[in-house]
Amino acid sequence: MLGSTHGTLTTDARRARVIACGEQRTGPAVHGRADDMDGLDVSGRPLYADVPDLARFFRPESVAVIGASDTEGRPNTGITRQLLGWAARVGARVHPVHPTRTSVFGHPCAASVADLPGQVDLAVLLVADPLPVIEELAETKVKFAVAFASGFAETGEAGAEAQERLAEAVRRSGLRLLGPNTNLNAFERFRDDLSGPAIALITQSGHQGRPVFALQELGIRLSHWAPTGNEADLETADFLSWFAEQPEVGAIACYVEGLKDGRAFLLAADRAARRKVPVVAVKVGRTEAGSRTAASHTGKLTGADDVADAAMRQYGVIRVDALDELQDTASLLARAKAPLAEGVVVYSISGGTGAHVADLAAGAGLRLPALSPDKQAELHQWIPEYLNVANPVDNGGHPVGDERGRKIIDAILADPDVGVLICPVTGPFPPLSDRLVADLVAAAEETDKLVCVVWGSPVGTEPAYRDVLLGSSRVATFRTVGNCLTAVRAWLDHHRFVGDYRSPFDEAPRTPSPSFRKAEALMQPGRQLSEHAAKQLLRAYGIRVPREQLVTSAAAAVRAAGQVGYPVVMKASGAQIAHKTELGLVKIGLTSASQVRDAYRELNDIARYEGVGLDGVLVCQMVEQGVEMMVGMTHDALFGPTVTAGLGGVLVEVLHDATVRVPPFGEDQARTMLTELRGRALLDGVRGRPPADVDGLVEVILRVQRMALELGPQLAELDINPLMVLPRGQGAVALDALVVCR
Amino acid sequence: MLGSTHGTLTTDARRARVIACGEQRTGPAVHGRADDMDGLDVSGRPLYADVPDLARFFRPESVAVIGASDTEGRPNTGITRQLLGWAARVGARVHPVHPTRTSVFGHPCAASVADLPGQVDLAVLLVADPLPVIEELAETKVKFAVAFASGFAETGEAGAEAQERLAEAVRRSGLRLLGPNTNLNAFERFRDDLSGPAIALITQSGHQGRPVFALQELGIRLSHWAPTGNEADLETADFLSWFAEQPEVGAIACYVEGLKDGRAFLLAADRAARRKVPVVAVKVGRTEAGSRTAASHTGKLTGADDVADAAMRQYGVIRVDALDELQDTASLLARAKAPLAEGVVVYSISGGTGAHVADLAAGAGLRLPALSPDKQAELHQWIPEYLNVANPVDNGGHPVGDERGRKIIDAILADPDVGVLICPVTGPFPPLSDRLVADLVAAAEETDKLVCVVWGSPVGTEPAYRDVLLGSSRVATFRTVGNCLTAVRAWLDHHRFVGDYRSPFDEAPRTPSPSFRKAEALMQPGRQLSEHAAKQLLRAYGIRVPREQLVTSAAAAVRAAGQVGYPVVMKASGAQIAHKTELGLVKIGLTSASQVRDAYRELNDIARYEGVGLDGVLVCQMVEQGVEMMVGMTHDALFGPTVTAGLGGVLVEVLHDATVRVPPFGEDQARTMLTELRGRALLDGVRGRPPADVDGLVEVILRVQRMALELGPQLAELDINPLMVLPRGQGAVALDALVVCR
Repeated sequence: MLGSTHGTLTTDARRARVIACGEQRTGPAVHGRADDMDGLDVSGRPLYADVPDLARFFRPESVAVIGASDTEGRPNTGITRQLLGWAARVGARVHPVHPTRTSVFGHPCAASVADLPGQVDLAVLLVADPLPVIEELAETKVKFAVAFASGFAETGEAGAEAQERLAEAVRRSGLRLLGPNTNLNAFERFRDDLSGPAIALITQSGHQGRPVFALQELGIRLSHWAPTGNEADLETADFLSWFAEQPEVGAIACYVEGLKDGRAFLLAADRAARRKVPVVAVKVGRTEAGSRTAASHTGKLTGADDVADAAMRQYGVIRVDALDELQDTASLLARAKAPLAEGVVVYSISGGTGAHVADLAAGAGLRLPALSPDKQAELHQWIPEYLNVANPVDNGGHPVGDERGRKIIDAILADPDVGVLICPVTGPFPPLSDRLVADLVAAAEETDKLVCVVWGSPVGTEPAYRDVLLGSSRVATFRTVGNCLTAVRAWLDHHRFVGDYRSPFDEAPRTPSPSFRKAEALMQPGRQLSEHAAKQLLRAYGIRVPREQLVTSAAAAVRAAGQVGYPVVMKASGAQIAHKTELGLVKIGLTSASQVRDAYRELNDIARYEGVGLDGVLVCQMVEQGVEMMVGMTHDALFGPTVTAGLGGVLVEVLHDATVRVPPFGEDQARTMLTELRGRALLDGVRGRPPADVDGLVEVILRVQRMALELGPQLAELDINPLMVLPRGQGAVALDALVVCR
Repeated sequence: MLGSTHGTLTTDARRARVIACGEQRTGPAVHGRADDMDGLDVSGRPLYADVPDLARFFRPESVAVIGASDTEGRPNTGITRQLLGWAARVGARVHPVHPTRTSVFGHPCAASVADLPGQVDLAVLLVADPLPVIEELAETKVKFAVAFASGFAETGEAGAEAQERLAEAVRRSGLRLLGPNTNLNAFERFRDDLSGPAIALITQSGHQGRPVFALQELGIRLSHWAPTGNEADLETADFLSWFAEQPEVGAIACYVEGLKDGRAFLLAADRAARRKVPVVAVKVGRTEAGSRTAASHTGKLTGADDVADAAMRQYGVIRVDALDELQDTASLLARAKAPLAEGVVVYSISGGTGAHVADLAAGAGLRLPALSPDKQAELHQWIPEYLNVANPVDNGGHPVGDERGRKIIDAILADPDVGVLICPVTGPFPPLSDRLVADLVAAAEETDKLVCVVWGSPVGTEPAYRDVLLGSSRVATFRTVGNCLTAVRAWLDHHRFVGDYRSPFDEAPRTPSPSFRKAEALMQPGRQLSEHAAKQLLRAYGIRVPREQLVTSAAAAVRAAGQVGYPVVMKASGAQIAHKTELGLVKIGLTSASQVRDAYRELNDIARYEGVGLDGVLVCQMVEQGVEMMVGMTHDALFGPTVTAGLGGVLVEVLHDATVRVPPFGEDQARTMLTELRGRALLDGVRGRPPADVDGLVEVILRVQRMALELGPQLAELDINPLMVLPRGQGAVALDALVVCR
């Protein structure tokens, strides 16, 4: 079956295309094994992106314009004119369709879809109700349709129903639809005089994509714009995965208001990561308060936006907040080559500027290596001895005015430790800054290292900026230090990420583990399990719980304590008990039979007083020596099951120090989760305590992930808290657990 | 003595000027009582700013240029020419001074300083060595001098010594000096065609001030620029407090690399806060790692930058990171009137844009009230019913094209809940955006509410931006949403801050408390106190400690336990013991005489084994029920004594959850400190625990402040950890304390 990985033996056109594309690029071949291409993981979800072939959407050979008009003053006339111009530029034949016109702008008109001559790649629907047209188009061989009409899901419930009918018609038709409620952005006039890697743009709002499109006026190439509108069919993920295959695309910029399918987005992002194509996204919703009410902490600890944030990070999607960051970061990532080194040098004509920018750069997590004594000596050939050239490099101004300026830049860039030179031009002073800028532009032509200029003047009409810097495709020019640092950091992060990337989908479980059968039998649909039952479920998945017995009499409690071993903990047990500690329903450190007998009585008394139904009392082994953590799972509306880990015990309520991942993820991600906790030092051992068994904790996280994937649909929530992580080598024990079955 | 507050009875010219200025402005009169004007607090530091009268510096009647030149090609010639131009603009007579020239650019030349005719306000020193000139000037009545020469403290130790000699000469001379190592920035050509409140600028680096100066090209008025250079005499604080008195100054923008005197800066900021003048500052040093090694946690918990940050916040100084934020924030604060309401409405021609900006605005801490049903109905007169007008207000685009556009803006601004309208123009589409912008500019002319436009196009050459928006002094125009939100937030914060402001200097203690004498006797200069001695010091200041006795035999330990009351804690006691817990030198929960005897022996064994010298064993009352916090003091190199509060016990090491203040501060600030802790919910009572005695904790913070102020010079470090904060009404008890005497 070797040949199958080369795509020649497969007949599925879509699959063949993906693999063929994989070989065109310089990136690694797509990892997906062709025989698994339609594989599902154990949760029944797909493991590989379904990449539509959108070539004929963006470059059709023939376009039908349904509802075309050339009557002045009608909205469709302007649209028709724009479409004709676009079709001429991409070399497509145009077929206007109108029931009563014979021609539109000189193009002969078909009376209906049925009358269209031969193959049509793209039908543009300028009609108020696209549904009947879609049904007619189903009869033709049209590959793509675009529907501009609004009044669908964006207007409320009735609109959403109309949209579902439209989507259903599209599914039956075999064509692919963009829209409804989209616009002409895909058919804009792109500058064709710009070369080099381009930005491909995906937006859910045309208006919000406008500043990225306008980057062309600053010399940044744009190759595509997909305005996804209401996504009745084609969605962000479709364009993302297809753009990632296009050789001219250097970076994909996304503006996302809401994702249609979280999994599809991650599969597309996975595809981009495999192909080393950077994806930069604005995802609205930072302040969306998680509105779900959940019985467990896991459900409350991380909101929907935390999950989206984690999911994007898992697949290397660079999330930014504002459109200016999207523009600057996508521009840099599209155009800059891979870093030759990670060291950043700040170079300036002013010591103050250098120190300030270096301070901000270090704060942004960039590494500013001190230049070697030899390199400093070299720089001091041209820079007065009393100026600091260790990094930041301060040239004092004068050397910029003559041939020393270029020599300094070249010497910095020649340092093997240096991958990036950042030169803030805080205030233009043409006698110096014009030459400085010209030297930087010239030097950037002769290096594969990254040269950034921050043009600090708020004016922005200066020729050195507008003509020289923006005229260079090699210098990355920014207007603010903040955006420069954000972009450089993202660029370094991206290349580090894709360099190490192994797709978690390749290693995701496809078949249930032996634990699954045992666990399934323990589930009680629609109920919250008692602590004892929840712990049995954990045991089924190999997660350690304390020795414990459920008893229903004081005498049995004493017997159980003898078997479990003193000291013991006793807890009220019942299906619906929450807040046991607050109610006094937990007794710890019991060291004798009489204490056990008293505790048994007291627990029953409190339960009666509080009106809590008991199914008995748990007599448990007492586990003291360890770090209290929590591990849990819940479901995200968009991304499905999620796994959370954090500080446990009281701290989980006070500090909300937790982190989340979207399965599937590997051991490396489970370890990374722990590094994200503010209180991670607790695991290293503080105040002379032994280091905790991090391996054991990671193992529990991975087993909970397995539960999430296998039991997902049946398991609504799981919350192990506290999970006592014992000293290194001794594992971790789930001291309490809450399980809600669906 | 009533009259003295009006300044008429005082003879000190400096004092009189401050008070007179205080009456010129519409802000409140300066609170400083004239009879306390030179008062010191109990730590011996000044309570009020010493405000120099800089009027004749910025607007001299006569200027001497020492080292003037008109020989083409010499650097001094260009400087002389610029000074002559500036002098002509401000109407000053110019007196060049040169030993051999008879005239410079047609102005008759004096041969030396001694030959200067009559009164000279300002002497500009264009000489390599300003020291002898300063000495000559001491004989004249020159008020101010400026020294451009470099080669002083910025070059190292020898330069610093030369600078100290210069400073000493200045002190003897009676004149005030700007520089050395400064430049011509104060004498730039300021635009005089701009009106309204201006920005006054203070920078330690000329280059770094350039973009703020360039704001004039965008229509923002600048009144002064003080390039403070090496600050041998006049420093940032001097200009800050003087600028705060000038009626034309709407905001002060500072670029600070290092402060000469932290206290002077705070006194100046206090003066600006009293007068409601906003101060916006870049302070370099975010990533400066605190280099001190300290024995206590307090010293390590918060670095020098945390202290600077807290100090600035205490006096309402708005700290920003980058120069573009400085420009945008200072511009808004200089020009916008006080808010009429705090509600922010986001108004856009696109629902996507509105949702995105509203999301970012909420994330920036702004309040976006939902508009009332009535207001929404009003807006729906002009905006289609299906569009969201609750806030953000989405007009869908079309209404902007006709007279509805202006009506919508006016209706939003008329809402009493609304103080700010933010309109992001994401992409210019002239048929709509030109009219939108014109309507916003016109509406802003007729309201005292704040109208902000974010011009989202990266191009920036569009006429609607360059001519219309920048031509308006009423609309605040930004290029990024982030900077708009930062500035609006700062504007609201500033007005809230100054509205509530009461100067802590007015209430700072001036005389030692009765505790001081007792405490002084307990200090052991140069030593770290034993725990027992440290607790005596706390008791002297009224901070509760557990009942405890220091014993030196097992029998005495048993007797002490009986008196203290079981259960007890026993701890090894000695002057230099750190890490008691890790070494096993603490025994808790001892409930019987035999346990006490065993513990006594064991502590001595461990101490012997570890080689730790004991002065005895502490037998202490055991305090369990409470929240472990920490309170401490240490010294900051710039701001003097500081007070820290945070989570205590093990958590202090793991979470570094602490916050710091610079004395003097009041009870309100002590309370605010607690709200800044991530783990503050611990104090509210979690898991059914009672709420902690926050009043008692605040009391301890204030008492530690008192210790810091009174014992400051003798008390190097103090660290109460844990401070057990008992349930409400029961106070707080210092369970352990570390004191290092200087």
